[in-house]
Amino acid sequence: MSRIGVLLSGCGVYDGSEIHEAVITLLELDRAGAEIICMAPNIDQHDVVNHLTGKPSAEKRNVLVESARIARGEIKDIKDVRASDLDGLIIPGGFGAAKNLSSYAVKGKDAEVNPEVERLLKDMVTSGKPIGAICIAPATLTKAIQDRHPEVTIGNDTATAETIEAMGGKHKICTVDMIHLDKKNKVVTTPAYMLGPGIKDVAAGIEKLVKKVLDLA
Amino acid sequence: MSRIGVLLSGCGVYDGSEIHEAVITLLELDRAGAEIICMAPNIDQHDVVNHLTGKPSAEKRNVLVESARIARGEIKDIKDVRASDLDGLIIPGGFGAAKNLSSYAVKGKDAEVNPEVERLLKDMVTSGKPIGAICIAPATLTKAIQDRHPEVTIGNDTATAETIEAMGGKHKICTVDMIHLDKKNKVVTTPAYMLGPGIKDVAAGIEKLVKKVLDLA
Repeated sequence: MSRIGVLLSGCGVYDGSEIHEAVITLLELDRAGAEIICMAPNIDQHDVVNHLTGKPSAEKRNVLVESARIARGEIKDIKDVRASDLDGLIIPGGFGAAKNLSSYAVKGKDAEVNPEVERLLKDMVTSGKPIGAICIAPATLTKAIQDRHPEVTIGNDTATAETIEAMGGKHKICTVDMIHLDKKNKVVTTPAYMLGPGIKDVAAGIEKLVKKVLDLA
Repeated sequence: MSRIGVLLSGCGVYDGSEIHEAVITLLELDRAGAEIICMAPNIDQHDVVNHLTGKPSAEKRNVLVESARIARGEIKDIKDVRASDLDGLIIPGGFGAAKNLSSYAVKGKDAEVNPEVERLLKDMVTSGKPIGAICIAPATLTKAIQDRHPEVTIGNDTATAETIEAMGGKHKICTVDMIHLDKKNKVVTTPAYMLGPGIKDVAAGIEKLVKKVLDLA
């Protein structure tokens, strides 16, 4: 049984993990018989967004506590997870992946990656273990392992693609139902809601991503 | 294209909609080509629970605003939805279905159902339109339409089954991968996380429930 980490970044597309992408990842991992290890950093969210209005809220929320909603309470602080505990790792998208796991949403190519996230991502790649990154999550992954020059998908947003390249990555065109595999780094990516349009569309790519990560694990 | 309502009750198993059940419902509806109309009552949550510790939090959150996280902002206040807008309705579980849609979690058989929820559920049944209810949601549904004596599943919890009967319903034994159809009332139910154990298990029953609601719509 492969042990696959799922790195969450809150609960909700505008300030946390994209919920559909996270749940489809969990469903496919469970169907494949994987052991799922959910994790998140124990830090304040960058912000809280009212998902009804799309506007910022004055609330404070914690990334680990909110991620626990998706994980039904079964979740670890990422600081307690080592690459040796895992055979593979998947990062769902949502703005949380670019606001809470790194400061990419604010600082672009000059983003800082959360130190625990950077440590785990670097150790996974160094150990030859696969990483799957969905939607905008490849931006944070690219920054974390920029000296490895990962090939990643990011949909078709030109500005985001250019920033990926500015961080040392290689942007790959990919439709929502497909994945790209960077064989050298064992990095698997899919655009998901960077392209959409709907949940069945993103599911097609995420299912392929989960299968590929498990194949490589 | 069938227009199927999805009645949410927040975002998280302990104080809102069970996220996995809600997302699997949305995924299966989209795959079947249904038009999805998410909705929730615009009221304060009964409580806010820290999903990492399982303990109550002092925060206040709004059911519609939190449900919007699952719906990616595409959601209506239930007060603006009429049975004539829908061909069917599905209610995911989670404690929110028994804390926010009604006071079942606190008052048991003496629960009050949110007036807008009660209005819509009664109108759907009176119009001969199907309702699917997942996990604990059948308890609130039973109370709302108790004079119709619905047959529902609730897993195998004896106390809950007895309360269903005390409210005028008929409890039906059902495994997690199956559904029960109350033909007279066009009510379809599945135990989901009332039984569990995992996401792939609840998905099996929810997929059947969505298909049956669409068949009846």
